[in-house]
Amino acid sequence: MRRAEFEVNDPKRIEELFASCEYGTLCLMDEDEPYGVPINFVWYEKSLCFHGSREGRKMEVIAKNPKASFSVVKPLSLIPSYFSNTRSASPATQFFISAHVTGTIEIVENADQKCLMLTALMQKLQPEGGYDAIEATNPIYTKMIAQTGLLRLIPSSISLKLKAGQNLSEERKKLVIEKLRERGEILDLLTIEMIEHVSAQ
Amino acid sequence: MRRAEFEVNDPKRIEELFASCEYGTLCLMDEDEPYGVPINFVWYEKSLCFHGSREGRKMEVIAKNPKASFSVVKPLSLIPSYFSNTRSASPATQFFISAHVTGTIEIVENADQKCLMLTALMQKLQPEGGYDAIEATNPIYTKMIAQTGLLRLIPSSISLKLKAGQNLSEERKKLVIEKLRERGEILDLLTIEMIEHVSAQ
Repeated sequence: MRRAEFEVNDPKRIEELFASCEYGTLCLMDEDEPYGVPINFVWYEKSLCFHGSREGRKMEVIAKNPKASFSVVKPLSLIPSYFSNTRSASPATQFFISAHVTGTIEIVENADQKCLMLTALMQKLQPEGGYDAIEATNPIYTKMIAQTGLLRLIPSSISLKLKAGQNLSEERKKLVIEKLRERGEILDLLTIEMIEHVSAQ
Repeated sequence: MRRAEFEVNDPKRIEELFASCEYGTLCLMDEDEPYGVPINFVWYEKSLCFHGSREGRKMEVIAKNPKASFSVVKPLSLIPSYFSNTRSASPATQFFISAHVTGTIEIVENADQKCLMLTALMQKLQPEGGYDAIEATNPIYTKMIAQTGLLRLIPSSISLKLKAGQNLSEERKKLVIEKLRERGEILDLLTIEMIEHVSAQ
């Protein structure tokens, strides 16, 4: 990362980001074409897990070239230029938290392993439950388990970037916090927390 | 696209999606590594326009290999499995609208062209204005224009995918709409509109 002030190395923050984002974008290479696929995911046993049909372009591409990157973003507030400057548009920006993961994808074929990964995905996206446990021995799941492709991205690197005003002067930072508080949307309050969190470090 | 029922070919819908999403994920190839970068963008003169520092990995990668894809997602509601089935987890899904753009990136060097693209970006992300017009002749912008890299992704293909219950039976679709209305979050109401829109086609 070019700007070291935005870099974060805290496994807890990374897991928090993964838990709070429903989907990310999987970047693959289809021969010499970059190919991006938005996809729901869960962080499970130190891997990113995805599911989808066993057919289709994504599975074909991965079978030929398992190298991938995965990008997850939690957008924070848009910061209008006039929060800190009344003439120039230059200060306009958007704060955010993002993760960039690189690694190699494995296609998971074992039925019990698939069930564990699907269970982790359901626990993330439907934490209130309301379904029979996903087990290979339960006949209501036999067809689904056979037809669903499970993928695991084993990270070789994970980097987290938190852009929340680290590059602002103390004076501008105060102004931005004040204006965010005035605007007062839920996202603005979270953004203030993030600005204060990185300021305190 | 494998499942034709999810495909949409309507330039107006594509422009609506681009206008309503602040950022997308740019997929590049750094030698033989896929590299995904979340980035704010604007659809301007039939291209996707981005800005950033003239330095850093993104610009280096593009200078070596300008092939790119761009992925934009508007997530719709998470659909819990129990909206239509009380035992199996299989119906759990998330509806969404997404665009996948492929093409080649040009680095824009002309100062007036840069100003037009930055103006389009500001009009999208700060429509209320509140800054001096971005013009190469205005001295408050001289340094910023010189330091900012402007990129234009000229599409060779754009595909739009709208997943909003097209594959459900009429009975299940009714159930899902009913449950979304009961839950009644803003996103659920938009999701109902989308389900009804694709049903009417």
